[in-house]
Amino acid sequence: MLENSVGVVETKIAKFDSLELESGEIISPLEIAYESYGVLNEKRTNAILVCHALSGDAHAAGFHEGSDKSGWWNEYIGPGKPFDTNKYFVISTNVIGGCKGSSGPTSINPKTGKSYGSHFPYVSIEDMVNAQKKLIESFGIEILFCVAGGSMGGMQALQWTVAFPDKVKNCIVLASSSEHSAQQISFNEVGRQAILSDPNWNNGEYEDANQPKKGLAIARMIGHVTYLSDELMREKFGRKPPRGNIKNTDFAVGSYLIYQGESFVDRFDANSYIYVTKALDHYSLGRGEVLTKNLSQVKADFLIISFSSDWLYPPYQSVEIVKSLEVNAINVTYCEINFSKGHDSFLVDNPEQKHLIHHFLEFANEDE
Amino acid sequence: MLENSVGVVETKIAKFDSLELESGEIISPLEIAYESYGVLNEKRTNAILVCHALSGDAHAAGFHEGSDKSGWWNEYIGPGKPFDTNKYFVISTNVIGGCKGSSGPTSINPKTGKSYGSHFPYVSIEDMVNAQKKLIESFGIEILFCVAGGSMGGMQALQWTVAFPDKVKNCIVLASSSEHSAQQISFNEVGRQAILSDPNWNNGEYEDANQPKKGLAIARMIGHVTYLSDELMREKFGRKPPRGNIKNTDFAVGSYLIYQGESFVDRFDANSYIYVTKALDHYSLGRGEVLTKNLSQVKADFLIISFSSDWLYPPYQSVEIVKSLEVNAINVTYCEINFSKGHDSFLVDNPEQKHLIHHFLEFANEDE
Repeated sequence: MLENSVGVVETKIAKFDSLELESGEIISPLEIAYESYGVLNEKRTNAILVCHALSGDAHAAGFHEGSDKSGWWNEYIGPGKPFDTNKYFVISTNVIGGCKGSSGPTSINPKTGKSYGSHFPYVSIEDMVNAQKKLIESFGIEILFCVAGGSMGGMQALQWTVAFPDKVKNCIVLASSSEHSAQQISFNEVGRQAILSDPNWNNGEYEDANQPKKGLAIARMIGHVTYLSDELMREKFGRKPPRGNIKNTDFAVGSYLIYQGESFVDRFDANSYIYVTKALDHYSLGRGEVLTKNLSQVKADFLIISFSSDWLYPPYQSVEIVKSLEVNAINVTYCEINFSKGHDSFLVDNPEQKHLIHHFLEFANEDE
Repeated sequence: MLENSVGVVETKIAKFDSLELESGEIISPLEIAYESYGVLNEKRTNAILVCHALSGDAHAAGFHEGSDKSGWWNEYIGPGKPFDTNKYFVISTNVIGGCKGSSGPTSINPKTGKSYGSHFPYVSIEDMVNAQKKLIESFGIEILFCVAGGSMGGMQALQWTVAFPDKVKNCIVLASSSEHSAQQISFNEVGRQAILSDPNWNNGEYEDANQPKKGLAIARMIGHVTYLSDELMREKFGRKPPRGNIKNTDFAVGSYLIYQGESFVDRFDANSYIYVTKALDHYSLGRGEVLTKNLSQVKADFLIISFSSDWLYPPYQSVEIVKSLEVNAINVTYCEINFSKGHDSFLVDNPEQKHLIHHFLEFANEDE
């Protein structure tokens, strides 16, 4: 298990006085949960920031003490892995607005002594990136060798290159988009409405003991369906009967989704789900000429990957980013990988993706 | 409005002693809500049965007295329309298990004097077709000139040709499948779980005044997303702000879905939603060799249509039916229509589909 692993790691919390949000509101104090793997070199030129997707957290690689559950990108981060911790100093943060240690709705509001809940200010993808920048600067890192992420993490990576063109050398955007389509918004919207329909929702001012778990579970089930592909679901579940002790469904895919919903609510907060999905849905660099203009100041080199079976973030959305980068004469390598695991393809062991990331970083390194 | 229309129509109720279900259970009495358009000829050889989809009803064409809302296939049924009521006697029934007049969970259980609710017996697509056959026979119709339907209606049409090969001359299957994939099941399953999560669900024994409307609304929203295409949603809603007085959403697609959910619960029953989606999910003629075997006794000529933008019932599922029919040397005309309106393409004004249905029936008629 620990072969090629970064081993036992822990999530740390970095504290800052405050962060001014795009809206003008202030988060104070600002806390950022993060992990790091590998060693920052003396010149501080080997830092890679990896950005998580909707339900991810700072725990991207290795294992927490006493747990056998590895970080969400353990396949990709470690000695000899694509994000090679023998070479790179890899940082992973939890997004603000989330519920995994960074400031968000579950944080204590110093003015009331209670958790913010729905009184936490609205945060955007831009705000998430601005928070990450504070952490990066606290390490004395002037320029990121690379910023990388899939899905919402890809939006953050892209935003880094737009907001701070001189601070990012290389950018990896996986299974992502320059903005959500109406269809992408709609799946998040139905999830939010499921939470709002839960009688425990109470306008977001629920107590710990009385959370809108049923609504959040439904939201997670909807999300889960969109992360998988038709083909993968056919192989994995087909039309088989339910598994385990789960009642109230006639099908294996039902028992899987019910289990996913039920286990999610123990590790995620309903307010955070609403905050983070709203950040996702509101992020917009536009398309076509608007996108081209928004990417005109970008300086990083890009690796962009999409997946044939990803119907939630269809390849055409990656192609739109590629085209706008090319119009701006930015170096961009693009690949649509033929892979059957749907949107989740970027998260799982995916040899072709590993190969592409490895070589993109190798090449970038030799270029130095 | 009444040009080429069948005009003012009414839904009638046909009563029968009983129907024995596949499960062995008995529905007694059996009521079937139906409408008919056009005139049955003397030889009773011009009858066409049209079958509705999940949330449809017997009201397929024309207008009810005092209403300006036309039937669900008004574009297709009427004088000079593809199902030409100058030539054909068109019958439309509400499926059993539904809540639009045919026997279902909202029917009164004669043993208790109360509505069945979740005590109504499980019904299958096969049972729905057996109920339709009773009605058809009550008209003295020996053989249907055609049976036609889209989505769940297509499954019923297909089932007619399998169960009663000598009773159907022509069969039209639109945007349908020989069985649901795990992905198709999953969307229905999340809808069912949303209903079951509603505190008003009460194991299906809810009172009229206390229905699980919020859960049913969420189920409908999920369904609605799957009926539309990425392209259509982009054109119709894009990333625009919400419309009308609908709060709790930041997007036009959100206000649309909330409206669709809210208006649905006033015209549909949560138990029926569960019964009908289960019938859909359990229906299985198999695929490949199993499907070929199940279709080996079929005698009808077929028109099968799929739509390029229908990701809920992808064209490959129609192709599977076509292939199995061809292996059995059944006459089948197949067309994948390039049309942007997603799964709903078969319901809306679709010139190419109209043309294909018109010519298929013309040709079949000349063949007589």
